[in-house]
Amino acid sequence: MKNFFILAFFLAVTPILAQEAGKDPKTTELWAITPKVVTPGTNFGEAPSDAEILFDGKDLNNWTGENNSAPKWEVKDGAVTVTKNGGIIKTKKTYADAQLHIEWRTPAKVEGEGQGRGNSGIFFMERYELQVLDSYDNKTYPNGQAGSIYKQSVPLVNASRKPGEWQAYDVVFIAPRFSENGRVITPARITVFHNGILVQNNTEIWGGTQYIGLPFYEAHGKGSLVLQEHGNPVSYRNIWIRPL
Amino acid sequence: MKNFFILAFFLAVTPILAQEAGKDPKTTELWAITPKVVTPGTNFGEAPSDAEILFDGKDLNNWTGENNSAPKWEVKDGAVTVTKNGGIIKTKKTYADAQLHIEWRTPAKVEGEGQGRGNSGIFFMERYELQVLDSYDNKTYPNGQAGSIYKQSVPLVNASRKPGEWQAYDVVFIAPRFSENGRVITPARITVFHNGILVQNNTEIWGGTQYIGLPFYEAHGKGSLVLQEHGNPVSYRNIWIRPL
Amino acid sequence: MKNFFILAFFLAVTPILAQEAGKDPKTTELWAITPKVVTPGTNFGEAPSDAEILFDGKDLNNWTGENNSAPKWEVKDGAVTVTKNGGIIKTKKTYADAQLHIEWRTPAKVEGEGQGRGNSGIFFMERYELQVLDSYDNKTYPNGQAGSIYKQSVPLVNASRKPGEWQAYDVVFIAPRFSENGRVITPARITVFHNGILVQNNTEIWGGTQYIGLPFYEAHGKGSLVLQEHGNPVSYRNIWIRPL
Amino acid sequence: MKNFFILAFFLAVTPILAQEAGKDPKTTELWAITPKVVTPGTNFGEAPSDAEILFDGKDLNNWTGENNSAPKWEVKDGAVTVTKNGGIIKTKKTYADAQLHIEWRTPAKVEGEGQGRGNSGIFFMERYELQVLDSYDNKTYPNGQAGSIYKQSVPLVNASRKPGEWQAYDVVFIAPRFSENGRVITPARITVFHNGILVQNNTEIWGGTQYIGLPFYEAHGKGSLVLQEHGNPVSYRNIWIRPL
Repeated sequence: MKNFFILAFFLAVTPILAQEAGKDPKTTELWAITPKVVTPGTNFGEAPSDAEILFDGKDLNNWTGENNSAPKWEVKDGAVTVTKNGGIIKTKKTYADAQLHIEWRTPAKVEGEGQGRGNSGIFFMERYELQVLDSYDNKTYPNGQAGSIYKQSVPLVNASRKPGEWQAYDVVFIAPRFSENGRVITPARITVFHNGILVQNNTEIWGGTQYIGLPFYEAHGKGSLVLQEHGNPVSYRNIWIRPL
Repeated sequence: MKNFFILAFFLAVTPILAQEAGKDPKTTELWAITPKVVTPGTNFGEAPSDAEILFDGKDLNNWTGENNSAPKWEVKDGAVTVTKNGGIIKTKKTYADAQLHIEWRTPAKVEGEGQGRGNSGIFFMERYELQVLDSYDNKTYPNGQAGSIYKQSVPLVNASRKPGEWQAYDVVFIAPRFSENGRVITPARITVFHNGILVQNNTEIWGGTQYIGLPFYEAHGKGSLVLQEHGNPVSYRNIWIRPL
Repeated sequence: MKNFFILAFFLAVTPILAQEAGKDPKTTELWAITPKVVTPGTNFGEAPSDAEILFDGKDLNNWTGENNSAPKWEVKDGAVTVTKNGGIIKTKKTYADAQLHIEWRTPAKVEGEGQGRGNSGIFFMERYELQVLDSYDNKTYPNGQAGSIYKQSVPLVNASRKPGEWQAYDVVFIAPRFSENGRVITPARITVFHNGILVQNNTEIWGGTQYIGLPFYEAHGKGSLVLQEHGNPVSYRNIWIRPL
Repeated sequence: MKNFFILAFFLAVTPILAQEAGKDPKTTELWAITPKVVTPGTNFGEAPSDAEILFDGKDLNNWTGENNSAPKWEVKDGAVTVTKNGGIIKTKKTYADAQLHIEWRTPAKVEGEGQGRGNSGIFFMERYELQVLDSYDNKTYPNGQAGSIYKQSVPLVNASRKPGEWQAYDVVFIAPRFSENGRVITPARITVFHNGILVQNNTEIWGGTQYIGLPFYEAHGKGSLVLQEHGNPVSYRNIWIRPL
C-alpha cells in the first residue's frame, strides 16, 4: 500500500540519441501565433486595457432588471446594492468563456443565519451559480457557502472576510460545449480565487444550478451574467469581464 | 456549416416530474467536507494565513544554490537578484500541487534582445518552466516569451509591464500523476495570471522542459521550486506558496 | 446568437517562416519512450498478453466474498452467477488505473421492474459504481440504468441487449488523485463502451457512489474491483484487467 | 519522499448527519434526460443501428479524392487499398465529435523500413493524424509508430498485429473548441483502442499535425475524415462513424 503512488516500475526510458532526435533548437520555436498586447491595470483588481467594464460605480447602463425592465438596484457611493424585491440584474450583453473580476460586500450588521445571511449569487450564462454569502463564522452546508458552486462543489478553503468588508472574486469561466445532437461534450469549468486564494480549480460544473435534485445540462448558447437577489442588501463594485 | 455548433437537434429533455425526482432540497446539501478557514492578506498579493513564505525580502534561508551549496544571489532592498554565474537557486522544501505568488522585475536598462533580454525562469518540480523574460516590445518566439510554458504553450496575451517595473505571476500548478508502471496518467497542468491577466488556463504541460526536441514525461516525486539564472540580473520578491 | 461558436475573429496567425522555425523534421521525433510490446487476443474481447485474468470461467481463485470469506456465488458453464444473499465478491488484488473487460447477462426470464430487474453493479476501487441492470425496455431513472455511473451520470445512449443475452463493458478507469492534504486534485474518470458503443466518455466521477445525497471524495489508496449482489441472479464471464 | 502521494493529513470528514442531509433517495434520481435506444451489432466491430457506414466493402460513394476528384483507390474483395500516386481519400460529409471504427491492413510482404513500411494515416477534421504503420518489429520514432498521434503522442503500448493481418482502431475523437476570438479553449482529445487495447486515453492533441516543428491550433469548423496515401498499398475495411 505504501507503494501505491511511488513508482516501483518504469517504462523503458532510453537516452535520447542526439543523432536521431535532431539538434536544432529552432525547430521547437513556435512563431505561428502572436499574442495580443494587453496593458494591465496599475494595481491589482484594476481593469486591463481589453476588459469590458460592466460596472464602474456610476450607473447600470450595461444591465437590465427582471424581464428586461430597468434594474431596480441602488447605485450609491461607487457601489450597487440589492434592493428588497428588486429582482435580479443581468448584463445586456451575453458572454461565454471569460475572465471576470467582481467585488462584493455583505452587510456589516449581521442579520439572519445560514443561507439567510448576506446571500446573493453570480450566475454565469444565466445558469451556473457561484455562491455569494456571508460565510464568516456562519454555519451552512459547505456546498452552499461563499466560493461554492451552489449545491455542487465545496470550496477548497473558506477565505471569507468579515461582514461589511469588500471581498473579491477572480474567476475563469469556460462555457460548456455541446455536440450537434445536443449532448454535452465538454462540461463548463470554473476557477475561482476568493480574496486572492484559490477556492475552485478548474472545477467541472455538473449542469445548471438546481435547488432541488441533481443538476444536468441542456444545450444553450451565450448568456448574460446575472446577479441574484436573495432578500439581503449585498453590494457589488468594480465589475469587469474579458471574453477569452 | 453555420450550424456547426448551433444545436439543430436536442436530446429528449422532459420536464422533471417532482413526484419522481423527489422534493427534498436538503438531500443535495453536502455536509461531509468542512473547508478549513484561511485568513486572506489585507491587500492583494499579500500572503494568506496558510501560505509558506519562501522569500520575504530579508534572506534566502529557505533556498539553496547549485548542488545544495549556499545560494549566490544578492539580497538587497527587499528583493533578491540573479548574479552573473550565480547559478540557480532552489527551495529546500519540495512541493507538488500548489498555488504560487511570485513577483519579478527585469532590468530597467534594456540590454540585449529576444531571449537575451531579462531572461530567467521558474521551474516547478525542478522540471516544468514558466518563462520569465522582458517581453515588453521585445520580439522572440511566442512560446518563449513571458507567460509561456517554455518551448510549449504560447500565453493567451502579452500582459508585460515595462522593464524595471515589478510584475506578478499568480499560478496554480497541478503535479503530474503516474501509474504504478511509470506511465503518465494525468499530465501536469498550470494556470497563470500575469499581472492579474489570465495567460494560461489549466494548460496541459507536455512533459519536462526541453531546449531541443519534444518534451516528455519521466515518473518523479515532489520537487523543489527552482529559479533560473540566464545571465541577466532579474530580481524577485514576495514569494509565497500554498500546497493544495 | 447564431455566431456563438462560429468564429468571427481570429488571432493573428502568420505564415511560419521556415528560416525562423527551423527545418529539421528529426527534432520532433521522440525516441525517449519505448512502448512495451503487447500481443492482442485473436478475437475482440479476448485478453491480450499483458492482462490479468480475473475470471476465466473455471473458478473464483482471484476473489473473496464479504469480509474476506469464501465467495458464495455459483460457477457453472463458464459463468459466475450472483446467489441470493450471497453478498458481494471482490478481487484479492487491488487496482487503480486500469482497462477492464467484463461480460454480464441478466436473467432471460424477466422478473421485477425498474431497479428490481437484473440489478448488479461493478465498483471500481470499492467505491465508484458502474451500474449493471436489465435496461432493455425497462423504465427507471436514467442515471440508474445500464451504463450509468450510478446516481451520477446518464449514459450517452441505451445500448442494451435483450435479457438473457451476454453483454460487454469495456472500461478505462482512471483513479482519483489527492494532495498531501487529502484534497481531491484530479477526480476519477471513466470511459465505458457498452456492447462496443460509447456510453461514457472520460466522464468525471463526482465522488464515491451514494444512494442518498450527493457523492463526495475521501482520500484513499488502491482498491479491489467489487461485483455487487442486488438480489437478482446476474451472471458474469470473461473478466480481465490491464493495470495502466 | 515515500509519503509523497500517501495521505498524511485528511480534510475534516465528518459523518453525514441524516437529519441535515435529508433522507430522500429519489432526489438524486435524474429523470430529465432520456438516452436514445441504439441496437448494437451482433458481433464486436459490427456497426450499431445509429452508425453512418462510411465503407461497407462495396464502393467509395461516401468519399472523394484529392481536390474533390473521384477517389483513385482500389475497391476489391471487401477492402479498399491505397494506390500509388492515388492521393488521399476523404469523406463527403464532415464531422466533429465522433466514435469511429476502422480496420486496416499493411502488406503481408514486408518492404521498406521505419516510416517507409506500411505507412498511411487517419486524419480527423482533416488536421489531426492518428498514425497507421506496420509497427510489427519495425523500428521508428515512437511518436510515429502505429497508435501514435503523429509527431505528438507515443502510444501506451505497441499492440500491432503481423503484416498482412487485419487490425482495428476504435476511436473517440472530441473536436477542439475555440472562443469567439479564435483562441483554442478546449483542445481536441482522442481515445484509441488498437486491436482492443488502450493506446491513447483521452490524449490532448497539441494542434494540427506538423511534419516539421511544433503543432498549433487555428480555429476551424467541421471537417472530413481523410485517409492518407504514403506510397504503400495499405488496405481499409469496415469503416463506420457515430457522431456523438
